[in-house]
Amino acid sequence: MRVYFLFFAFLFSFEINAQTNDSIMLRKIYDHYLTESKSYKNLEYLATKIGGRLSGSKKAEEAVYWAKKALYDAGADTVYLQPCTVPHWERGGKEICKVVSPGAKNGQLAVVALGSSTCTPKGGITADVVRVRSFDELEKLGESKIKGKIVFYDVAFDDKLITPGSAYGATVKYRTIGASYAAKYGAVATVVRSMTNVRNNSPHTGNMKYDTAISKLKIPALALSYVAADRICAEFDLFGKVKLHIETFCKTFPDAPSFNVIGEIKGSEKPNEYIISGGHLDSWDNGQGAHDDGAGIVQTIDVMGMFKKMGIKPRHTIRTVCFMNEENGLGGANAYFKEADEKKLKHIAALETDAGGYTPRGFGVDTTKGMHKMVSKWAPLFKPYFIEHIKIGGGGADIGPLEKLGVPCIGFEPDNQRYFDIHHTADDTFDKVNKRELELGASAIGSLIYLIDKYHP
Amino acid sequence: MRVYFLFFAFLFSFEINAQTNDSIMLRKIYDHYLTESKSYKNLEYLATKIGGRLSGSKKAEEAVYWAKKALYDAGADTVYLQPCTVPHWERGGKEICKVVSPGAKNGQLAVVALGSSTCTPKGGITADVVRVRSFDELEKLGESKIKGKIVFYDVAFDDKLITPGSAYGATVKYRTIGASYAAKYGAVATVVRSMTNVRNNSPHTGNMKYDTAISKLKIPALALSYVAADRICAEFDLFGKVKLHIETFCKTFPDAPSFNVIGEIKGSEKPNEYIISGGHLDSWDNGQGAHDDGAGIVQTIDVMGMFKKMGIKPRHTIRTVCFMNEENGLGGANAYFKEADEKKLKHIAALETDAGGYTPRGFGVDTTKGMHKMVSKWAPLFKPYFIEHIKIGGGGADIGPLEKLGVPCIGFEPDNQRYFDIHHTADDTFDKVNKRELELGASAIGSLIYLIDKYHP
Repeated sequence: MRVYFLFFAFLFSFEINAQTNDSIMLRKIYDHYLTESKSYKNLEYLATKIGGRLSGSKKAEEAVYWAKKALYDAGADTVYLQPCTVPHWERGGKEICKVVSPGAKNGQLAVVALGSSTCTPKGGITADVVRVRSFDELEKLGESKIKGKIVFYDVAFDDKLITPGSAYGATVKYRTIGASYAAKYGAVATVVRSMTNVRNNSPHTGNMKYDTAISKLKIPALALSYVAADRICAEFDLFGKVKLHIETFCKTFPDAPSFNVIGEIKGSEKPNEYIISGGHLDSWDNGQGAHDDGAGIVQTIDVMGMFKKMGIKPRHTIRTVCFMNEENGLGGANAYFKEADEKKLKHIAALETDAGGYTPRGFGVDTTKGMHKMVSKWAPLFKPYFIEHIKIGGGGADIGPLEKLGVPCIGFEPDNQRYFDIHHTADDTFDKVNKRELELGASAIGSLIYLIDKYHP
Repeated sequence: MRVYFLFFAFLFSFEINAQTNDSIMLRKIYDHYLTESKSYKNLEYLATKIGGRLSGSKKAEEAVYWAKKALYDAGADTVYLQPCTVPHWERGGKEICKVVSPGAKNGQLAVVALGSSTCTPKGGITADVVRVRSFDELEKLGESKIKGKIVFYDVAFDDKLITPGSAYGATVKYRTIGASYAAKYGAVATVVRSMTNVRNNSPHTGNMKYDTAISKLKIPALALSYVAADRICAEFDLFGKVKLHIETFCKTFPDAPSFNVIGEIKGSEKPNEYIISGGHLDSWDNGQGAHDDGAGIVQTIDVMGMFKKMGIKPRHTIRTVCFMNEENGLGGANAYFKEADEKKLKHIAALETDAGGYTPRGFGVDTTKGMHKMVSKWAPLFKPYFIEHIKIGGGGADIGPLEKLGVPCIGFEPDNQRYFDIHHTADDTFDKVNKRELELGASAIGSLIYLIDKYHP
C-alpha cells in the first residue's frame, strides 16, 4: 500500500514538475515572440512590397525568392524549393458591370471576375438578369426562363451563424460551381453576391471551376459587392426586372512551373521524422494577401526563428512549408503530398494557419494517432494566453492531402469575426493586421510545435 | 431507495430541461441581436454625429438628450435624467511641443495635454528635459537635477504582458500623479510616454490629478505619442540632452451640472429590485469615443430593445444607466451611488461594459451574494457563443461605488488586444468598430441580464 502510494506520488509530482517546466518554457517562448518576433516586419514586406501574388504571376515568383531568404534569415538549416505546377490565370483589367435597364442612372456596380473564369466576348455581354436564391430555384425555372440570361445568385451570409466560416461553407458553392449549373440551362453569365457579412462596396473574388459533368459550356462568372447585389435587388423590387452589361478581361494561360518553399531545422534525435507547419504563399491579386495568408506565412517562418534564436535543438526535424497555390488549384499541396508519399516521409504532425492573423482562440486537432488527446493535456499550459479550446478535428486545404497518409492535422484557430470582412478583397491589406494579435498567434503556434517536438515519443 | 432515485431523476431532468429551454432562449436572443440590433446604427450617430463629448461640454449635453431619446426608442418605460456635478475642462487648442535643442531639425512632436492639467504660461515653456523611468529614479535625482526642468516619464508598456490592461495598470500612475511628484522637486512640466503597445504617432490623453499632499504646485502635464517619446530618447542617445518647447491652451472652468441618463423597464414581480447595466456617455474630446465607451452605451441601450422587441416581461426592474463623467471625475457614478444609498434601492446586480466593442470573451463576476456561483452555472449556455470564461471579480469604475452597498458587480470582458491601440486618441473612431463584434457583445450582455432576471430568487 505504501509503495503504491509513493509510486503514484512520484508519478504525480513528475507530471506537476513537467507542467511547471513547460509553463516556464511557454512563458519564455511568448516573451521571445512578443519582443523579438519578425512576423510583423516580414508581413509588411510581403504584403506591401510584393503585394497580391496569384499563382503563376511574377509577384508569386518574387514571393518564392523572398520566402527562401526569409526562411534562411530566420535560421533554417536548409531551404528547399519544391517544384509544383500551378494554373496561370490573369484578371487582365478592371471589370465592367452596369445596370443598363431603361432609365437606370449611376448604373456602375462594383464587381470582380472570379478566379479561373473565362472572359466575356470583346464588347461584353448585355442581358436580362434572372435572380435565384438556390440551385433548386434555378432548376425549377429551367431553360425557358434562363436561356440567354445572366443568372444572379442572391444568397447572403446568414448573419445568425456565430462562425462566419459556417456561413461561407453554406454559400460558397454558388461561387464555385454556380456558372456550370447556370450554363446547363443556357445562361450567358453569372454574378454572385459576395461571400461576406459586411455591407460594403468591396467585391470578394475567389476561385470557381467549370464542372464539365454539369455543362460543357464555360460562361463568365463574377462576384458583386454586397452593395451592388442590393442595388440589383432594389431594381427588381422597383421594376420587376434588371438588365446588365458586363465585360471582363481575364485570361487563362498554360499551367506554369512554381514552387513550395520549405525551410527546416534538422532533428537531433529523429531527423527523419517531421513536424511541419505552414500557410500559403500565393494570394489573390486584388489585395495584398495580408491576412490571407501572409499572416500564416510569417507566423510559421517565425517557428524557425523561435528554435534558432532561443537555442532550442528540436528532437524531430521541424519544417516550415510555404505552400504555393492554395487559392486556385492546390498545386503546391499536391506536390508536397506526392513527395511525402513516394519517399515515405514520416510526418508526426502537420499544422496549418490560414484563418487570418487575429487573436488566437484555439486549435482544431485530429484524433489520428492520439494527437488530440496529447494536445488536450496541454490545455492548462495555454490558459494564461487565453487559448481556450482544443477542438476535435482540424487541418486546412494545404495539409489536407496528408491525411491520406495518416498524418495528424492541426488547424490554428484565431478569432474569426473579421476574416470574411476582407477575405479575397482589395481590403486585405497590411494595415488591417494588428501586430500583437499576429504575434500572439505566432506564439501559440510556436509553443504547440515545441510541445509536440518535446513530448512525441 | 426507489423514491430517492425518482426524486433525483426528476431534479436532474428539471435541470436538463431548464438548460435546454435556456439554450433555445439564448439562441433567440442572439438571433434578435444579430439581425435587429440597433447598436451599430446608434453608435454611428453617437460617434460620428456627436463625436467627442467630454463632461461639461456642449457635446456631452447633446449626448444626454440623444441617450434619452435612444432609450425611449429602444422601448424603455421610463427615462430619467439623474443630476450630477462634473468638472469642466477644455483643451483650448492644439498643443505645441518642439525639440529646440541646438541644431535639432523637424522638431515638432505629437502631444496632447492630459485632462485636468493646467496650461503653460502664454508663450509656453522652454526647458531641458530630465528623463526618468520610475518615481524612484526621480527621487534619487532630487531637486538639484530636476528644478526648472521638464520631466519625461519614459515608462513603456511591457509588451510581454498578455493583457494590455495589466501594462496600463502598471504605468498609468505616471500619467495620473506624475506631475505632482515632479513638481515636488521643482519641475516646470511633465511629458509622459503614451499608455499603449502600439508604435505610432497618436498621443493618448487621459486624466491626471494634482495631489496637494505631494505638491501644492500645479505644473502642465502632457502625453507624447510613442514615436515622439522615441524621438526624445534618440536625442538623448545622440546628444545626451534635449531641450523642449511646449505650449498648451487648456482651461478649467467651474464645475458644471450634468446628468446620468437612466432608462428602465419596470419589473412585473419585483419592481423595486433592480438589475442594471451601463457604460459611460462621456468621452475624451480628441476622438469620437467609439470604443470608449460609445460601444458600451449602445450595447446596454440595446438591453431595453431586447426585452421590448422580444416581448420578454422582466421580473425585476431592468435599468440601463448611461453614466456621465467616467473619464475625469466619476461625478455620475457618485450621483448614482448616492441616490441608491439614500433611497435604499435594492440592486440585484450591476454590469458595466467599458472595455470596447470587441469580440466577447467572458465576464468577470463578483462572488458577492453568490453571483459568481450563479453565473458560472450558465457557462455551458454561453459556450456555443465562444464566451469561455466566467472569472472571479469584476465591475468597472462607474459601478464600483455600488460595491459599498453589497451589490454584486459584473464586468463584460471582450477581447482586449486592440483597446489600448486607440484608447483616448484621435483614432478611437466609428470605423474601428466591427458591427458583428459589437452585436455579439450586446448579445452576451443581453443574455446574461435575461438569465439573472429569470433565475434570481
